[in-house]
Amino acid sequence: MVADGAATTTPIPVRVAILGASGYTGAELLRLLSSHPHTSIVALSGERSAGSPMGSVFPHLAFGPPGGFVHSLPDLTTTAEVVTVAQAGAVDVVFCCLPHATTQKIIAQLPLDKVRVVDLSADFRLRDVDTYAAWYGAPHAAVELQRQAVYGLTELARDAVRGARLVANPGCYPTSAQLPLVPLLSAGLISPADIIVDAKSGVTGAGRAAKVGTLFCEAADGMSAYGVAAHRHAPEIEQGLSDAAGAPVDVVFTPHLVPLARGILSTMYVKLAAGVTADDLRARLAAVYDEEPFVHVLPAGAAPPHTRHVRGSNHAVMAVVADRVAGRAILVCVIDNIVKGASGQAIQNMNVMCGFPEMDGLGATPVFP
Amino acid sequence: MVADGAATTTPIPVRVAILGASGYTGAELLRLLSSHPHTSIVALSGERSAGSPMGSVFPHLAFGPPGGFVHSLPDLTTTAEVVTVAQAGAVDVVFCCLPHATTQKIIAQLPLDKVRVVDLSADFRLRDVDTYAAWYGAPHAAVELQRQAVYGLTELARDAVRGARLVANPGCYPTSAQLPLVPLLSAGLISPADIIVDAKSGVTGAGRAAKVGTLFCEAADGMSAYGVAAHRHAPEIEQGLSDAAGAPVDVVFTPHLVPLARGILSTMYVKLAAGVTADDLRARLAAVYDEEPFVHVLPAGAAPPHTRHVRGSNHAVMAVVADRVAGRAILVCVIDNIVKGASGQAIQNMNVMCGFPEMDGLGATPVFP
Amino acid sequence: MVADGAATTTPIPVRVAILGASGYTGAELLRLLSSHPHTSIVALSGERSAGSPMGSVFPHLAFGPPGGFVHSLPDLTTTAEVVTVAQAGAVDVVFCCLPHATTQKIIAQLPLDKVRVVDLSADFRLRDVDTYAAWYGAPHAAVELQRQAVYGLTELARDAVRGARLVANPGCYPTSAQLPLVPLLSAGLISPADIIVDAKSGVTGAGRAAKVGTLFCEAADGMSAYGVAAHRHAPEIEQGLSDAAGAPVDVVFTPHLVPLARGILSTMYVKLAAGVTADDLRARLAAVYDEEPFVHVLPAGAAPPHTRHVRGSNHAVMAVVADRVAGRAILVCVIDNIVKGASGQAIQNMNVMCGFPEMDGLGATPVFP
Amino acid sequence: MVADGAATTTPIPVRVAILGASGYTGAELLRLLSSHPHTSIVALSGERSAGSPMGSVFPHLAFGPPGGFVHSLPDLTTTAEVVTVAQAGAVDVVFCCLPHATTQKIIAQLPLDKVRVVDLSADFRLRDVDTYAAWYGAPHAAVELQRQAVYGLTELARDAVRGARLVANPGCYPTSAQLPLVPLLSAGLISPADIIVDAKSGVTGAGRAAKVGTLFCEAADGMSAYGVAAHRHAPEIEQGLSDAAGAPVDVVFTPHLVPLARGILSTMYVKLAAGVTADDLRARLAAVYDEEPFVHVLPAGAAPPHTRHVRGSNHAVMAVVADRVAGRAILVCVIDNIVKGASGQAIQNMNVMCGFPEMDGLGATPVFP
Repeated sequence: MVADGAATTTPIPVRVAILGASGYTGAELLRLLSSHPHTSIVALSGERSAGSPMGSVFPHLAFGPPGGFVHSLPDLTTTAEVVTVAQAGAVDVVFCCLPHATTQKIIAQLPLDKVRVVDLSADFRLRDVDTYAAWYGAPHAAVELQRQAVYGLTELARDAVRGARLVANPGCYPTSAQLPLVPLLSAGLISPADIIVDAKSGVTGAGRAAKVGTLFCEAADGMSAYGVAAHRHAPEIEQGLSDAAGAPVDVVFTPHLVPLARGILSTMYVKLAAGVTADDLRARLAAVYDEEPFVHVLPAGAAPPHTRHVRGSNHAVMAVVADRVAGRAILVCVIDNIVKGASGQAIQNMNVMCGFPEMDGLGATPVFP
Repeated sequence: MVADGAATTTPIPVRVAILGASGYTGAELLRLLSSHPHTSIVALSGERSAGSPMGSVFPHLAFGPPGGFVHSLPDLTTTAEVVTVAQAGAVDVVFCCLPHATTQKIIAQLPLDKVRVVDLSADFRLRDVDTYAAWYGAPHAAVELQRQAVYGLTELARDAVRGARLVANPGCYPTSAQLPLVPLLSAGLISPADIIVDAKSGVTGAGRAAKVGTLFCEAADGMSAYGVAAHRHAPEIEQGLSDAAGAPVDVVFTPHLVPLARGILSTMYVKLAAGVTADDLRARLAAVYDEEPFVHVLPAGAAPPHTRHVRGSNHAVMAVVADRVAGRAILVCVIDNIVKGASGQAIQNMNVMCGFPEMDGLGATPVFP
Repeated sequence: MVADGAATTTPIPVRVAILGASGYTGAELLRLLSSHPHTSIVALSGERSAGSPMGSVFPHLAFGPPGGFVHSLPDLTTTAEVVTVAQAGAVDVVFCCLPHATTQKIIAQLPLDKVRVVDLSADFRLRDVDTYAAWYGAPHAAVELQRQAVYGLTELARDAVRGARLVANPGCYPTSAQLPLVPLLSAGLISPADIIVDAKSGVTGAGRAAKVGTLFCEAADGMSAYGVAAHRHAPEIEQGLSDAAGAPVDVVFTPHLVPLARGILSTMYVKLAAGVTADDLRARLAAVYDEEPFVHVLPAGAAPPHTRHVRGSNHAVMAVVADRVAGRAILVCVIDNIVKGASGQAIQNMNVMCGFPEMDGLGATPVFP
Repeated sequence: MVADGAATTTPIPVRVAILGASGYTGAELLRLLSSHPHTSIVALSGERSAGSPMGSVFPHLAFGPPGGFVHSLPDLTTTAEVVTVAQAGAVDVVFCCLPHATTQKIIAQLPLDKVRVVDLSADFRLRDVDTYAAWYGAPHAAVELQRQAVYGLTELARDAVRGARLVANPGCYPTSAQLPLVPLLSAGLISPADIIVDAKSGVTGAGRAAKVGTLFCEAADGMSAYGVAAHRHAPEIEQGLSDAAGAPVDVVFTPHLVPLARGILSTMYVKLAAGVTADDLRARLAAVYDEEPFVHVLPAGAAPPHTRHVRGSNHAVMAVVADRVAGRAILVCVIDNIVKGASGQAIQNMNVMCGFPEMDGLGATPVFP
């Protein structure tokens, strides 16, 4: 169900700041917000590019009508300066695209009574700070804030997001895995044991830092697994599935890097609960997402979902197939990793927090081919 | 200069039909029109898929909010049926994406007193029907219509387009070549002799027909020239340049197929008129396109334009560089071949014909990465 | 262990014919055989291109030194004609790259007392003709031949291949799955239950037929699963794993199409037998493949295998990782699907059948980047 | 004409050292030399990776038969150490893949009486040291050596290369441009004026250094021109064309970066000398390259050359087309930029210098798809 725009008490347009705007998720936030009817961009930070116009960092953001959106974007500045502006009450919403660990300290300086924050880093996703410390190699630096943070898998946390001041935006892989698995576990339709998530991601997931491994000549026309049995998104997925199951759930999770820019495809292998069929799983998901603008459950027999069909959009498309092996089903879910898996869902969360229609800024049709 | 929306006398929304909607340009028209505020899609034709929903031909057009744009699209039908509907006065604008030759006969059946037509085929681009016959291997079948057709290179033909009933939408290569060259020839700043256009196109330009040559394994990780000294866009470019120069202009034109989906990059080699510098060329183009929302002239010293920076958008970006060789300049122009080079410019022309703001349906920021 | 060249009694050079030489596996056989010291190509068939030189079907086979390999290739002819030539005793080895079903009837016409046959189709891979009929939709047309056929997963069937007249060359996915799994099941190190194979393939696997789904614009920059719970390679994998386990084994198998030309990566999820560790699995595989020229087991802690590192070569590289979830391991195996997964293994089998060193024609270093 | 193997007086195998072996050209030298019958690799340098095995820098060089080529490769060491080894007389041939400027100083330390050197950098390509200084921003540091250096465009400089101690291996773009243009200028068949070279290169040309601009997400699915009117290969091309014409020749040269790993396609626009036809140009090139194993001139009417057809090989393929515009012709030449445009031609030069057959190490068929 989409939030009712009438419910909003937020002054329009909301004044938006983006911390860490010089990476791919920052650029994608701006691309999407350029069509948002109720926002204005008031501050952008990027340490290394402070003082530069966004068009010098992302030329595709330099072209538009005279006086249009891109020409009214503020130049990049330092994160510290944006924090000061926010403390002065000149910002309503902050999107944080900073690296983990850094993020905690910065957000701790933001006046949450004045600003709403959507954090795209991993810093506030794990409720258990010990789990955070174990996976991120350092104790959590903002334990109090962690308690207030709401995990923003929008469709499954809409009410909590609506009242939140700080939303932890889900990771890309966890979004593609939890959207299908959570409703099935919460309904007891699949076994909490032996859940396997084999995920494939496009290269934008690796970010814009210059590394040999993501050079065109290294990444194109080839693929590999990475972070096998050691990826930080595993505990995030397990947290969501355990909540849904009401008991600890272990997940076998393997990410892979494939030669495309945008897209995640997660293939999930599950065991059916006694007496349950794949059709029951599909019916459950179809019912849960029936009214959702962004989540789509394919009918039985449809061609499996293709990442090209959600490219550049906030859509998630999933399919359920009965396996040849008795008592098993195979689930497939595709998203655009930097839209529904990052910047798109972040704007969706902002829309819910501010009482805007959830489609605002997210209505564009997928780009194909 | 953008047309003033207030000037329109067109009933809103205009009722749009697309002939040949099952190809890439048809799909792109729908993607762009999904964000147009003043149109409704009333008919879509595709002979081989008649009776099917668009979502079965283009799954990326199947996903949207319940009751939204994509769910209100009519199923595909035959071209003949759409013609009947148009004759009955139930259509205001027809976009024609049919193959050349076929197109002439179909458009001849449309009531131009009732409908405005934007033809994306090559059938009405060449004013000289003998030239058409020579290049297309058959006499023109609608010579009368040809006389009424307006060549719709929007920025350079806005007034004629405004009053047109039939617009011949320019080819992708000719758009990328004429936008920079026409204003330079009309001002006498470059020689009409020895103009060379070396153009590179993405694979969408080859259409959606299944051919071995455009299979992934044949087109990826390689490139070639094609239609060398024999491509049908050469006479179209020469027509525009000759009009601008006021005398016949020959153009050396070589197209190339490169492994990307969307984008055309044309590199043009010209000789400067006596006493003219590359800066003069740049100043001329900057002045001509100063107020244009979609055409951008890079300043001296800027990085050359990249097709990724206009991907999915209606923008054209051009640069002028003084050559090392005295008396010469090099021009580079990039567009998205299926937007500014086809469906985007077609919608821009419709906007002008209907008196809508030219940005309607075309305001999206380029998709990068 | 590589076969000893001294053992051969085959007259050199062996006269080779390729049936169905106008597809990717045929072209790859020729690319590899061009460096084979003991073969000469005497006949090539391709129905639609009969009468044409290979260079017109595959231009990359047109370039070489005057009088060299490519210039001595016979023109394409009909399959019937090649069968006649073989019946006349003018061929020693036949590689069959024809579609399934067709293959059975053709091979039944070949004089197996005179020619050795390596069949790259699926027609003789499944020992149980009822299973064949169930998956391929028609009864097997050469049941007697099926009994003589040897399944040619070379490293694990060398002795049987050495004496074979008809070798069924394994499928690409089954090769990547059985090389790691068979030795583990035969040693009882993993459970025969809950084995999951999530496989990703490059687009060459779809062949050279012109189809919309494998056009550059449809396959590039995107991915999808296909044949979910319904792919014909599943029973082939289960046959090999059941033989190894000495009891029926079910396999959960999902293939995916990813945007690269060459490469298969299979990720396998297994449960460890009681008291067994991932190190035990790795040690077993390392011991089995210790002397093999083409199969490589990565040490613990090495970066996961990348398909780019075997591109264009007959190598298979595998890794074993202990999962975070107790009692589980994750296996990854990469091959070039048209070399070790098809044409390369076919030549390796020919080398064993003829008593040639197994590296003959297969010694080239992988192509990177 | 291929050098006669019998002519050699070089002790076999020749002991090869590669300076700067951790880049793409170094890796490609090793890939090609792995099939060379008369060389052994005795030293490899890579400053940042000194002490590491090549397999850790290039995993594709880690896989081969036990005791085979890759397992006998020496670990990487420092350039200084390799120089010492060469001074001690333990090296016969040095391939230098170091950055320009550095190269001059290193080669100056090599004992040219004992070692033959093929330099893949730009340091010794420009005969005029003032031109070098103007384009490379510093005076040449080894003017004496420069006088001894032979420019190694093999087919057109075979005799000079045979006697050389130091060969300057041509640049990738200059190789693709000079092979067709030099024989036409030397025969006076085309005008030395208005020669335009529009060149497109794959991304390997940018090397393996981690830069944002060559990341997969920046380079894939897009293209741009670069170094417009300012690329250092322009004076190199002009040097060769001026020698051929016997008078100074200016060249308009524009390089482009396209999203593929290997391949250069140069499109050249020339004016015919009086009374000359395109057929005359083709006949001249066919006569010049008739006996060459690596250079191929397509017949009139053939499909234009495709980089995929030379991928991974040392072949160059060219075509000549009569332009529509009177008195003009269009030439197209394709090569693999890191083979014929770098490492392959370097080995070809070594073969000539050592009196080996030119095909040694270069006989592999192109890799397609």
